[in-house]
Amino acid sequence: MTDSVELTVNSLHAFLTRLFERYGFDGVDAAFIAETLVDSERKGIVSHGLQRVSMYDGKLRQHTIDPGATATIVSEDRACAVMDGQDGMGQLIARDAMNLAITRASEYGIGMVAVRGSNHFGTAGYYARAAANKGLIGIVATNSNPLVVPTHANMPALGTNPIAFAVGIGEEQFSYDAATCTASLGKIEVCAQVDQLIPGTWAASAAGASETDPSRVLRNLKQKRGGGLTPLGGIGEIDSGYKGYGLSLIVEILTGILAGGLTSIDLAGRQVCHWFAAIDLTAFGGAQAVSERMAKLFLRLRALPSADGQPVLIPGDKERAHEARLGYSTGRIRDDDGHAERTITVNRGTFRQLRSIAERAGLAAPEPYNSVSSAGVPEFQFGRSEGVRA
Amino acid sequence: MTDSVELTVNSLHAFLTRLFERYGFDGVDAAFIAETLVDSERKGIVSHGLQRVSMYDGKLRQHTIDPGATATIVSEDRACAVMDGQDGMGQLIARDAMNLAITRASEYGIGMVAVRGSNHFGTAGYYARAAANKGLIGIVATNSNPLVVPTHANMPALGTNPIAFAVGIGEEQFSYDAATCTASLGKIEVCAQVDQLIPGTWAASAAGASETDPSRVLRNLKQKRGGGLTPLGGIGEIDSGYKGYGLSLIVEILTGILAGGLTSIDLAGRQVCHWFAAIDLTAFGGAQAVSERMAKLFLRLRALPSADGQPVLIPGDKERAHEARLGYSTGRIRDDDGHAERTITVNRGTFRQLRSIAERAGLAAPEPYNSVSSAGVPEFQFGRSEGVRA
Repeated sequence: MTDSVELTVNSLHAFLTRLFERYGFDGVDAAFIAETLVDSERKGIVSHGLQRVSMYDGKLRQHTIDPGATATIVSEDRACAVMDGQDGMGQLIARDAMNLAITRASEYGIGMVAVRGSNHFGTAGYYARAAANKGLIGIVATNSNPLVVPTHANMPALGTNPIAFAVGIGEEQFSYDAATCTASLGKIEVCAQVDQLIPGTWAASAAGASETDPSRVLRNLKQKRGGGLTPLGGIGEIDSGYKGYGLSLIVEILTGILAGGLTSIDLAGRQVCHWFAAIDLTAFGGAQAVSERMAKLFLRLRALPSADGQPVLIPGDKERAHEARLGYSTGRIRDDDGHAERTITVNRGTFRQLRSIAERAGLAAPEPYNSVSSAGVPEFQFGRSEGVRA
Repeated sequence: MTDSVELTVNSLHAFLTRLFERYGFDGVDAAFIAETLVDSERKGIVSHGLQRVSMYDGKLRQHTIDPGATATIVSEDRACAVMDGQDGMGQLIARDAMNLAITRASEYGIGMVAVRGSNHFGTAGYYARAAANKGLIGIVATNSNPLVVPTHANMPALGTNPIAFAVGIGEEQFSYDAATCTASLGKIEVCAQVDQLIPGTWAASAAGASETDPSRVLRNLKQKRGGGLTPLGGIGEIDSGYKGYGLSLIVEILTGILAGGLTSIDLAGRQVCHWFAAIDLTAFGGAQAVSERMAKLFLRLRALPSADGQPVLIPGDKERAHEARLGYSTGRIRDDDGHAERTITVNRGTFRQLRSIAERAGLAAPEPYNSVSSAGVPEFQFGRSEGVRA
């Protein structure tokens, strides 16, 4: 038995859509949530794909996430607004908030929406790219549970607080999406699973030293014994860890502070705050001109000689390369592309989780690819819910 | 003879104003440039204070900077605009661009201005704080000469590309201003001067290894032999140097790409591009409410136990502390504050440079404090040019 199974994109999307319908979401919303998860798998962002279904399943069954909630605007002023997610599903709140930012941008040139009362929304990059795909700049940030230690402190007080920034249409889209800490908790969990020391300065002890034992990092976080993840730049000031700490605080301000909601220090898996911005490119020559200027720069950067044998990349290249290996020529999916048999490789542990979730929901889990007849593959549904709904 | 001299703030400001008038700037502009330089000294940002006068002096005498230039709007659309600095003095262009962003914010809720054809503008933080002092969020970025090596590349292609972000009124103003590389060139120059190895991963060799010999780093940069400064996070991917690289690219996009000007890879000390944003806080409850929410968070962060004996700080605290030691109670200066005898400590080498510049310009250099009679101190002039002119 291999360590992984192949699932067709279509069967996976159809299964996830049915699953989220069972939790109480309507068809369009369920298909959108499914798409954000499959999109992560398609781009090789395994940490935010099917692995997360179990977390959402738990929160929906415990009613921490309300499938009937609709995000509301609680205050607004020209380009800017604050929304309250009403404890709904993070993906739907994020979609609606980015849509509002895009609408404001079409009116004022820029739109900006801070959100409180939300939940985990998947990858920040998904919503930034949704704006970029429409010819705008998209910028997204979110706070999250306290795992990161401020410079000189001995306890975590900041979330991993990612920032995503996307701009450009077509092949040369720039798509940055990164936590403001050195490495995610997921990377440390992988070290623990494979019984390896942490290779860099990803974590600090309560005494402010580098902590390379992944199990001790996880235990210290769980038992609040002090120490935690390091901000980008590392511990202390020598390698400028205070810069990552400051960037993380900027995310705290844009999200929890602007939205009048919780900051990461008070988060425990719900009442998350996000921030979305969309910038119309008309003043800057339009999306086509901006994309062309970027393409020229990127061409020169990619042509730089390598110091270590690895190619110079542009943010977004790795995800594009992963999609290309799966047979997608671009990040966008077309209905008429005849790719019903494109498959995603899923870790067997994750697949077993999916099966047990399916069983509890009274659904058939998607069958590994070779045992599915093409006649059994459901209609492809991405086209309708691609990106953020207009 | 001591290594430093004390100069009164007033005599220094008056001298610099007269000096910039000699280059051809009108009185208000000259006083503004003087104020940005004295402000850096007041905040302890010595790298961007009087040390830089020699650089500006050289560029003005070589006519690289045109003292008669006025920045013009070259395209605009609602909240956004592009300005061309016409090779003028960076400080004045930055003042005018941030003023325009603030004006647009008063109309649309947000304002955003990309600038091309400018010069070195001092600290990015100065203009971000100017917006914050008026009750908005201020965000500023600039590109700069290529010194930073993209992840996996063997040559510098990015500027140090700082990002500044300021918000909040009063004592708890948040003021972040940091390059997107690990450490500035100035820090490496200091290592070379005091004959010490570089303490962190501030620089890379052409082979992608950490380079700790500061003289070799400076020689390699000067002779374009490969290697250079590392992006925030360091070399390669282990400690997420690619995140700093990506943040630096975001600055390239916001500045050179949006403005349709040069990107850092093509810069050689002129035709610099900047980016300014101002966000009205009305939708978010107003500046007072946002400041109060921030103050509550900052109080808790500062109260976190220390891992290493050093206090947990908020961006802006170090500069505030420096001003407080000089006798300023806040970052703002009041005409009626009776601080004519406040002094700034200036390195003797920098003071000698100032004296030789003064001599060439036919001006009397400011006298070290103890030899100045208080009757000889000119009227205090900050009030008029504090922050960005309305």
